[in-house]
Amino acid sequence: MVKRIEEQFLQYVKKMMGYHEAINLMYWDLRTGAPKKGVEQRSEVIGMLSEEAFNMSTSEEMAAFIAKLSPKGIYEQLDEVTRHTLNECKKEYERNKKIPVEEYKQYVVLCSKAESVWEEARAAADFDRFRPYLEQIIEFQRRFIGYWGYEGHPYNTLLDQYEPGMTVELLDGLFGQLCERIVPLVHAISAATDQPDTSFLFATFPKEKQRAFLLELLVELGYDFGKGRLDETIHPFAIGLNPNDVRITTRYDERDFRTAVFGTIHECGHALYEQHISATLVGTPLASGASMGIHESQSLFFENMIGRHLSFWKRHYPRLQRYAPEQFAGVSLDAFYRAINEVKPSLIRIEADELTYPLHIIVRYEIEKQLFAGEIEAADLPDVWNEKYEQYLGIRPHNDSVGVLQDVHWSGGSFGYFPSYALGYMYAAQFKQALEKELDVARLLEEGNITPIREWLTANVHRFGKTKKPLDLVRDATGEPLKADYLIQYLEEKYKAIYCL
Amino acid sequence: MVKRIEEQFLQYVKKMMGYHEAINLMYWDLRTGAPKKGVEQRSEVIGMLSEEAFNMSTSEEMAAFIAKLSPKGIYEQLDEVTRHTLNECKKEYERNKKIPVEEYKQYVVLCSKAESVWEEARAAADFDRFRPYLEQIIEFQRRFIGYWGYEGHPYNTLLDQYEPGMTVELLDGLFGQLCERIVPLVHAISAATDQPDTSFLFATFPKEKQRAFLLELLVELGYDFGKGRLDETIHPFAIGLNPNDVRITTRYDERDFRTAVFGTIHECGHALYEQHISATLVGTPLASGASMGIHESQSLFFENMIGRHLSFWKRHYPRLQRYAPEQFAGVSLDAFYRAINEVKPSLIRIEADELTYPLHIIVRYEIEKQLFAGEIEAADLPDVWNEKYEQYLGIRPHNDSVGVLQDVHWSGGSFGYFPSYALGYMYAAQFKQALEKELDVARLLEEGNITPIREWLTANVHRFGKTKKPLDLVRDATGEPLKADYLIQYLEEKYKAIYCL
Repeated sequence: MVKRIEEQFLQYVKKMMGYHEAINLMYWDLRTGAPKKGVEQRSEVIGMLSEEAFNMSTSEEMAAFIAKLSPKGIYEQLDEVTRHTLNECKKEYERNKKIPVEEYKQYVVLCSKAESVWEEARAAADFDRFRPYLEQIIEFQRRFIGYWGYEGHPYNTLLDQYEPGMTVELLDGLFGQLCERIVPLVHAISAATDQPDTSFLFATFPKEKQRAFLLELLVELGYDFGKGRLDETIHPFAIGLNPNDVRITTRYDERDFRTAVFGTIHECGHALYEQHISATLVGTPLASGASMGIHESQSLFFENMIGRHLSFWKRHYPRLQRYAPEQFAGVSLDAFYRAINEVKPSLIRIEADELTYPLHIIVRYEIEKQLFAGEIEAADLPDVWNEKYEQYLGIRPHNDSVGVLQDVHWSGGSFGYFPSYALGYMYAAQFKQALEKELDVARLLEEGNITPIREWLTANVHRFGKTKKPLDLVRDATGEPLKADYLIQYLEEKYKAIYCL
Repeated sequence: MVKRIEEQFLQYVKKMMGYHEAINLMYWDLRTGAPKKGVEQRSEVIGMLSEEAFNMSTSEEMAAFIAKLSPKGIYEQLDEVTRHTLNECKKEYERNKKIPVEEYKQYVVLCSKAESVWEEARAAADFDRFRPYLEQIIEFQRRFIGYWGYEGHPYNTLLDQYEPGMTVELLDGLFGQLCERIVPLVHAISAATDQPDTSFLFATFPKEKQRAFLLELLVELGYDFGKGRLDETIHPFAIGLNPNDVRITTRYDERDFRTAVFGTIHECGHALYEQHISATLVGTPLASGASMGIHESQSLFFENMIGRHLSFWKRHYPRLQRYAPEQFAGVSLDAFYRAINEVKPSLIRIEADELTYPLHIIVRYEIEKQLFAGEIEAADLPDVWNEKYEQYLGIRPHNDSVGVLQDVHWSGGSFGYFPSYALGYMYAAQFKQALEKELDVARLLEEGNITPIREWLTANVHRFGKTKKPLDLVRDATGEPLKADYLIQYLEEKYKAIYCL
């Protein structure tokens, strides 16, 4: 009897995931080359299938499955994958059901308007144009927090959406330590006399040559083209339709090869994660990353800890030089390595280097935390923002377009999302420290033998998909709770050496 | 009240069509570059969405809509598009409901097995391996005919699936006349002394150059790249996701440019049809071709009546020569024109030229008709096939792999489909004759001014989508019922001139 309901439940979930696979393919298609005039009708179809999937997740049928399979004595009889799936479905069901339908509809309409207003406001560097929308979005989010409930800080329930189990109490400690050590380092670097020469980075590097270089690189990194493909887009992304179809996209800038090279290695890190999720999880919501932050840990690990490692370029720099001989003539490996690891405090998050990036995140984290503690309001944001940039990065935005208006996130109500980016660095550094106990990473990179590294990540991270919470995953993989120490240590060692401090 | 049900019905149908749009995108993706290892899971999702769409078409809800909107007095109040949509839905509902569910499931399983057995049998040229499956498929189809009912000949109900309103009574007349005139012409051509030299066709023509030539050509033919894209596949096709997203694919053979050039013009003809279906039909089953044959009339019109026309190459041959100067050095326009219109009776339908192609179809038509009249059985097919090839084309297959086993259609139960291919030629010739009353086609082709031709086709064919039955469409567009005369006249004039008969 239980077995039969369990099977029906899994079939039901599989269908829901099938909708998501179709929707994801439509998104991929829209972003990689769908004919422009077909976009409107395609968006309607995406909306229709999304509604269908959403309705399934909050239906009476779903409620009945949850009611029948959750009781003690029955839950324990379920297969492990079913139990995790049930937990995920329950969590989504409860979140979605707690918000009154009419209120949620108003909120969706507001956000879709807000995004275009935000775009205009950013273009005009006019925060006041966006402010009334932002105020309403924050109001809605505060009410949602009330519906959902929370433990400790109200912001915790927002964090939990993207990073299950993460709390203000934990983040305050982790980000505090990070700030304490990284801010002085950034200031010391800004004052250092021996700055890298980066002028050679901006020579013309034809797109076809970049692509040829990258295709070879992706194969060496272990990206399986039997389970993926590389396309071009304006905003690069990785998208897992299922673990056997995980696509990546990139953007080529002929006057800055770093855009495509580091962007592609980054997306490759995301893709390797999803390509190696256990096949037993396919057809459930578990066949995805454990959290936004864990996903980002994989892309950042590949982009920075592999892709900006000296040993990696010992092997690949001569090959890169063959693709653009004039550009790199007379540029030594060491000069190249220093240039691609340049540290330079800047105003724009998405253009930031590895060292200053977490500081951009901490600014946003502190602001969001204060907003949902009721300590500040939307109207305070420009001033608070500018002061924090001055404090942490030593630079002050000259207008809101390069300040508080730069990110799309808040216009869509994505509060609680930003910390995942910085957590990604922290997770990555802790994974690195653990895997280096078993593997000589520098030697493997010089040999081009990425497989043992990828296998370690698969064994300890990838295969579990969403069956573990991020903090448990880190503890199981590294034998320790999450600490800021490993990221601090990694950054200090690397950048003190580069800047001879 | 009626208005409200009408709106609900249209919403319901729109959702069903949304599924089909998603399914079609998944098919396009599978055939143009989806990662190989993801195919299995993708096929499951396609199956799931297809089942959903099928269930909607045969649901109690659909039955209720039909019951509520069909009665006299109500039906007349409906919008015209709704009336046509209702008719289509009713037709599909009744067809699908008449077959017992269990029997249909057995049939689907049989067909999916039969296709792989057919592939093996064809590879081994062993008809007996495929025969037991074919026998069962025919048995099922004969029972289906019983369920569906028919007027006149039992085969009529099969024809009606692909060519609404078409009957054996009509086809016997049309195909009979065609045979009577074309068979002697083919024989005369085979015996002609002045055969075209085709040797220059097979020089190496690099793929990139073919593609560049074709991209320019497609724009001149009126293919709107804002509503479509050109990709590569093994088996070329056109697919309309909606009238604003109609994609085509092609295959490049570097040793025979004709594959891509004429293949692409053919698919362009299909695509122009769907790109110009009236926007009012989007979201209904009417936003597609009137029938298989009418669809084929558009592709064949472009491929042959435009793409193999002397005036067309007067304009484009110099451009083609620039893309492959060595290949065409010393080849006159006349020699080129004769070569691309070579007639040569052959065993394989899909390789046949414009003149002999209809004969391949007539062979299949006669066989299918006899099968469903109970005059022959599966076991008789190889002999009947070979005799008919000898009779009509003057050549006899040396084994069943190039004979009765060559087409995939029967393994999937697609009986009644083949006649549409030959009807496509007939429709096209009759459209040509009618539009030539208003337009100087030869002059327009020389000027590269395709627009008036495409506009005539849009006004008389494209825009109606599936709102007219093929025979009505032909009568309305040309002022006459369908006749074989125009095709015969076109073929005789063209090929007598080319072969100096």
